[in-house]
Amino acid sequence: MEQHGARLVFPIDVKKKPWEQKLPLHNRWHPDIPPVAEVKVGELFRVEMVDFSGGRITKEYSAEDIKNADPSIVHYLSGPIRVLDEEGKPAQPGDLLAVEICNLGPLPGDEWGFTASFDRENGGGFLTDHFPCATKAIWYFEGIYAYSPQIPGVRFPGLTHPGIVGTAPSRELLNIWNEREREVEENGLKHLKLCEVLHSRPLANLPSTKGCHLGKIQKGTPEWEKIATEAARTIPGRENGGNCDIKNLSRGSKVYLPVFIEGANVSTGDMHFSQGDGEIAFCGAIEMSGFLELKCEIIKGGMKEYLTPMGPTLLHVNPIFEIGPVEPRFSEWLVFEGISVDESGRQHFLDASVAYKRAVLNAIDYLSKFGYSKEQMYLLLSCCPCEGRISGIVDSPNAVATFAIPTSIFDQDIRPKTKVASWAPTGEDTRCAKVHL
Amino acid sequence: MEQHGARLVFPIDVKKKPWEQKLPLHNRWHPDIPPVAEVKVGELFRVEMVDFSGGRITKEYSAEDIKNADPSIVHYLSGPIRVLDEEGKPAQPGDLLAVEICNLGPLPGDEWGFTASFDRENGGGFLTDHFPCATKAIWYFEGIYAYSPQIPGVRFPGLTHPGIVGTAPSRELLNIWNEREREVEENGLKHLKLCEVLHSRPLANLPSTKGCHLGKIQKGTPEWEKIATEAARTIPGRENGGNCDIKNLSRGSKVYLPVFIEGANVSTGDMHFSQGDGEIAFCGAIEMSGFLELKCEIIKGGMKEYLTPMGPTLLHVNPIFEIGPVEPRFSEWLVFEGISVDESGRQHFLDASVAYKRAVLNAIDYLSKFGYSKEQMYLLLSCCPCEGRISGIVDSPNAVATFAIPTSIFDQDIRPKTKVASWAPTGEDTRCAKVHL
Amino acid sequence: MEQHGARLVFPIDVKKKPWEQKLPLHNRWHPDIPPVAEVKVGELFRVEMVDFSGGRITKEYSAEDIKNADPSIVHYLSGPIRVLDEEGKPAQPGDLLAVEICNLGPLPGDEWGFTASFDRENGGGFLTDHFPCATKAIWYFEGIYAYSPQIPGVRFPGLTHPGIVGTAPSRELLNIWNEREREVEENGLKHLKLCEVLHSRPLANLPSTKGCHLGKIQKGTPEWEKIATEAARTIPGRENGGNCDIKNLSRGSKVYLPVFIEGANVSTGDMHFSQGDGEIAFCGAIEMSGFLELKCEIIKGGMKEYLTPMGPTLLHVNPIFEIGPVEPRFSEWLVFEGISVDESGRQHFLDASVAYKRAVLNAIDYLSKFGYSKEQMYLLLSCCPCEGRISGIVDSPNAVATFAIPTSIFDQDIRPKTKVASWAPTGEDTRCAKVHL
Amino acid sequence: MEQHGARLVFPIDVKKKPWEQKLPLHNRWHPDIPPVAEVKVGELFRVEMVDFSGGRITKEYSAEDIKNADPSIVHYLSGPIRVLDEEGKPAQPGDLLAVEICNLGPLPGDEWGFTASFDRENGGGFLTDHFPCATKAIWYFEGIYAYSPQIPGVRFPGLTHPGIVGTAPSRELLNIWNEREREVEENGLKHLKLCEVLHSRPLANLPSTKGCHLGKIQKGTPEWEKIATEAARTIPGRENGGNCDIKNLSRGSKVYLPVFIEGANVSTGDMHFSQGDGEIAFCGAIEMSGFLELKCEIIKGGMKEYLTPMGPTLLHVNPIFEIGPVEPRFSEWLVFEGISVDESGRQHFLDASVAYKRAVLNAIDYLSKFGYSKEQMYLLLSCCPCEGRISGIVDSPNAVATFAIPTSIFDQDIRPKTKVASWAPTGEDTRCAKVHL
Repeated sequence: MEQHGARLVFPIDVKKKPWEQKLPLHNRWHPDIPPVAEVKVGELFRVEMVDFSGGRITKEYSAEDIKNADPSIVHYLSGPIRVLDEEGKPAQPGDLLAVEICNLGPLPGDEWGFTASFDRENGGGFLTDHFPCATKAIWYFEGIYAYSPQIPGVRFPGLTHPGIVGTAPSRELLNIWNEREREVEENGLKHLKLCEVLHSRPLANLPSTKGCHLGKIQKGTPEWEKIATEAARTIPGRENGGNCDIKNLSRGSKVYLPVFIEGANVSTGDMHFSQGDGEIAFCGAIEMSGFLELKCEIIKGGMKEYLTPMGPTLLHVNPIFEIGPVEPRFSEWLVFEGISVDESGRQHFLDASVAYKRAVLNAIDYLSKFGYSKEQMYLLLSCCPCEGRISGIVDSPNAVATFAIPTSIFDQDIRPKTKVASWAPTGEDTRCAKVHL
Repeated sequence: MEQHGARLVFPIDVKKKPWEQKLPLHNRWHPDIPPVAEVKVGELFRVEMVDFSGGRITKEYSAEDIKNADPSIVHYLSGPIRVLDEEGKPAQPGDLLAVEICNLGPLPGDEWGFTASFDRENGGGFLTDHFPCATKAIWYFEGIYAYSPQIPGVRFPGLTHPGIVGTAPSRELLNIWNEREREVEENGLKHLKLCEVLHSRPLANLPSTKGCHLGKIQKGTPEWEKIATEAARTIPGRENGGNCDIKNLSRGSKVYLPVFIEGANVSTGDMHFSQGDGEIAFCGAIEMSGFLELKCEIIKGGMKEYLTPMGPTLLHVNPIFEIGPVEPRFSEWLVFEGISVDESGRQHFLDASVAYKRAVLNAIDYLSKFGYSKEQMYLLLSCCPCEGRISGIVDSPNAVATFAIPTSIFDQDIRPKTKVASWAPTGEDTRCAKVHL
Repeated sequence: MEQHGARLVFPIDVKKKPWEQKLPLHNRWHPDIPPVAEVKVGELFRVEMVDFSGGRITKEYSAEDIKNADPSIVHYLSGPIRVLDEEGKPAQPGDLLAVEICNLGPLPGDEWGFTASFDRENGGGFLTDHFPCATKAIWYFEGIYAYSPQIPGVRFPGLTHPGIVGTAPSRELLNIWNEREREVEENGLKHLKLCEVLHSRPLANLPSTKGCHLGKIQKGTPEWEKIATEAARTIPGRENGGNCDIKNLSRGSKVYLPVFIEGANVSTGDMHFSQGDGEIAFCGAIEMSGFLELKCEIIKGGMKEYLTPMGPTLLHVNPIFEIGPVEPRFSEWLVFEGISVDESGRQHFLDASVAYKRAVLNAIDYLSKFGYSKEQMYLLLSCCPCEGRISGIVDSPNAVATFAIPTSIFDQDIRPKTKVASWAPTGEDTRCAKVHL
Repeated sequence: MEQHGARLVFPIDVKKKPWEQKLPLHNRWHPDIPPVAEVKVGELFRVEMVDFSGGRITKEYSAEDIKNADPSIVHYLSGPIRVLDEEGKPAQPGDLLAVEICNLGPLPGDEWGFTASFDRENGGGFLTDHFPCATKAIWYFEGIYAYSPQIPGVRFPGLTHPGIVGTAPSRELLNIWNEREREVEENGLKHLKLCEVLHSRPLANLPSTKGCHLGKIQKGTPEWEKIATEAARTIPGRENGGNCDIKNLSRGSKVYLPVFIEGANVSTGDMHFSQGDGEIAFCGAIEMSGFLELKCEIIKGGMKEYLTPMGPTLLHVNPIFEIGPVEPRFSEWLVFEGISVDESGRQHFLDASVAYKRAVLNAIDYLSKFGYSKEQMYLLLSCCPCEGRISGIVDSPNAVATFAIPTSIFDQDIRPKTKVASWAPTGEDTRCAKVHL
């Protein structure tokens, strides 16, 4: 019987270490990392991936592994994959690569994940000034649902997505990245007020040979040394897509990525069973290993046709995407607001990051009144399908951000209670006005 | 026949000027503005309101009125309304006031609105450096739908909401506002990097006697002078709610407002037929006159029970709300991304405002390829039901913001096109494999 | 100031009787009932209407009025309205008339409705063998919500719609109706098995001069006598649309009606604040007075282009429609099933009506375990936004019907309970695996 | 590394024939078919299944296999599975078994399915008088999407579900089934009017030893002969659930099944990638092999607590279920109506099956104007996620049924067209009213 389904182009054996896999992984962006697989437009193919940490964060009910995590190794990516058109010619710089996510999920037999916050001394996260300790929750999957022994009374369907999907940068683009990020790393503390409110560190993640994996490029060779020194870290999202952490990039969605080098060289990784907008706790999604089933199209010259550079070069573009049709459906949301006044009472100017911090802090405090610790809620709001919105960005001096929580993920009613249900009148006859024959 | 429906507590005659209305309007926040109406918990009441400008922005197809608009008069509010419990006792400081929006809409006979951007020299808006001119579009309503002669080919159902609903501040809270906003107005340009990227001005909107209306307080009296000098402007959202511009605060939603003074003294105004997250063009919603049908509950001591102060005083809280069940339903969205690198190529640190600006600029440029001017799209994306999200806020140095546009509001397909519809195989027999008897 | 909004073409004064209104009402279908208003394609116009009973069913908490209701007077319709094209020429037979429902709602000051079941001896309803008595519940509206003193603990947003919208039949079509319905009335009991299971009576509603209103045609004239004798009752839905009771024909929907006579002569009435699929209790929606804001288009020759006759003549067609974008959103449904075995245990052949009866009976019995009487649930399930589906229609001998109830309309959890919430493991450490510094 | 995920209790090898599988399949309902697996409440387990035909319907682009299909072998089921409580005691008659569908899908490597209509002489389907020939379409899956070379221009996400999930009947219940179905088979043609409109045959599917599989019971033994003679066919849905073909019984849903014999003995099969309400073409879903991941709870005595008998015995009950949270989301629907007048023009009395037939015929004819044959549309509307509703069931003599099609599954706009887009005014200035500085 002929088999149907996606062609497996990047296999993962979850029982093996990242460096023991059949195809080598990489954890940096660089034009010279060679492709390890080829696909044609229109074909359905499957890419498997390890979790972002390559198995270093374990199922143990202890946060020791998080406390001592090595940030230099993130994120283990599957790829690069070279994309060919119908005639076998590779995608060209200036093309737009449409990648449809036809399916995705955890790897069979590995249906679990974790949500964690880094120690403040080891990078921290969005609220590291409030939650300086490393914490971790383990999540088990029951099909579409996840639950955690560390956060009981909560269960929700995942809006599963890859945290990272991106194309390889050209050398020119890579240089732009390295220069602008070095500038913020070196001078940001002096110039940027947000550094006083947001305590994630470092300010930027510059290239480092430590922990570097470059796929087929053998460690220790001169080529490796050269590339490792200049290759971009995968932590921030950039013009090539990358670590955008867009929680709605799920089943049936389509992302349009700019092509910067021949073949496009797509890589992907950092699967999330679920994530809230912002992924606030840093490794705050439900991190897991997983698979994607993808289909590509090449839009010839599509960068010029559909993307407009917004910056000093033609490379200053961003991907666009379409949302898929099978997101979990929630009808009731409790929404928290924040304005751009920080916790010390200081006024900022239309600062959505500060406003969002306030909204999230308000939500955590509110939920902690329902039998949870604040640490539990920090992790939960980081990984459950919360929506974080910029509601107002023009009413000086306050930006208004909102943070919406689907109420049905809890097994208790978390809405504020007024004494009496307002639509149940008392003292009236509650029987039908029935007439007996 | 006994009449049913909401009791009208604040009537508006749209043929009259703001100062000719039966009940006086106000456009400042201050504890000493006296209530003009009283309601009891549980009763359904109706509040009508002028548009934020009190009719100064007209139906004329010209932007002269916007160019010369006087910002000192915004926003004309209806209220304050004093709220009593079942026994006739007023709400007390520390209570939480639940306000349910049972219904809302435009005023009969006045079914039109406008979307406008201010001139850069007159305040500007989120993208005033890109769109420095005053522009205006008129929208006409056909029941739930709006269309504009200035932006043809577009029509959408409104997610109608009041831009402003808030309680009166206490004197202590008012002082906090005035102090922190004066600080940013005086020193912001030196300290705040965002001022270099966001060009709305002034940095804060401090009290001004010019254009001030204080309801029942007669202009020219010593009392008026005193209050006008210290009363807060209504432009930013703050601890009392106010101008939050939360587009989902629509039919069936419920907002929980802190009570700072006896009676709560709720005011509302700035009706929006529709608005996108962020209301980017400043008077960027579809601004209109309108009505609300409201129902209040008092949660005794609810501030302490449900809101947690996040700042130096017990007053540093924010409202929370629940979303209603009848929002317009869109199933297809085109999403634009932005990262915290500004248009000059400069790297910012996890700055969601900068990332959002990029996402919106990307969207405007993209849509301008479909037969529209960028000014048209600036206005459209400001008022149509777009969703603006903070997608990533922890991956230094880039925040990632997304901006999602419902595709069905256009009468053309605005998605990127690949040559061939990908699921229509060619060269195969397209008939059913039918067997004839 | 120029006024905007819909032009009122059919006004109703709710304080007056049906026969005292400014424009005369009618309650029969006939080609010779003259139009009372004219509209042009593209213009927005407003039609107001009395409730189906013209005020005979009252707000009294007694079912006496229902018990003695006169079925000959249903339904009071507003119209006919003649539709003209851009050049002022009337719609022609063979055209398709697109009617967009831009807005609708109760009439101001009359925000209440009723749900009732008829006495078995007076017509009955879907379950009249189980619920033979006349019953009635009064509903009050709070904006989008309805609640009833007779069915406490329940509140829901309305999916408001006109029960009836239709075009005037041609003489030929009218004859077809009268002949086929006379046949079923005269011979149905002998031939039709369903009559033994469904006890609504009569089998058909034939023309009757009793209770007849014919708009501008004066009662007592020879013309009136002639038309009244042959005019079709408005009770069943037919080829012209009419009493389709399609609950999703709400705000923003569009109905495509065949045009049978010059001008189309559209009539509408029987407003429902809300209705469940099937409207099982007969006047089982929340019946009310109300208004529609409509806009028409004429598709020239559209009957031939879009409708296919399915029967012996070209007139055997049915309307089609598009659903609007603002239906209330429910995410959790409890679903009851029925198969085509009747309550006596007798097997029917693929009979969806029998299966639906079982499903509804199952739902009523289930809900009566939560503190309600069965009569209360009969009325509730008739008027709340339940969905009735034909799930299986090919698996002989059983049709399978399903009946879905949105759970959030109740103020208690009506789902079956297992002892322990299944995702709340006990005996495990529920704290985060936190590492202290 | 410890493996996580569902325990596989019923494996299928898609390369093998039904009778070569590791665990034996069955295709009849009978209390004496022994369980082949055991599960405990709370555990997640996986059941795999062949397609309903056990591979007899092939991927060939020919309908010969359908034309000659042997109806006696349907449906191959996986099970029975015995369910134990926490203490290892089996479920008892009178309990309610809650089965949660945590996940489901096609089997890896077998991602395809078929939709077919049977020949009229071989059983037919809902519209076999209109479509008497055997037809077949092959569907290929791209993750969540299906497309067919036989119906180009169409692609949609699946609402995947098992057509069959049921518990074993008790002997008493089995006798009830056999008696009532024999009665309709023998006397139906005389009594039931619907037989003249619906042409599926036979009227009932009575026990037959031909094609019978009874799991562990060896063919040819006296036990086999006895059971085969009395075991119920799996074709109709009944009190035990069974072939309900409820398309919304998908990921995250929960079905509450009555327990009639010790252990419950649950069986499942007939996986559908997608199906429209009614599954009109008979094997009209997208039929496939597949898997379920299930979790059970036992509600002790739950039949009495939650199900009400509706018939002559305590066994006359029906299952209930809850819909899951991840159904595909469609926002635009085109809806066709039918009334209970059959194609010959004959009037029926409140007959929803007749009305539904009209609605479906109307839809097929309409869509055939968009470049499709009617046979193609018969198959498509049978398997795509259409909704079939009973809209009116009380307005004698017409039942009204509606049939709603999600418009976005087509790559063309299938809505009726009026000449000009109604909201694009012409002849007006379409530029913003911009004022230049």
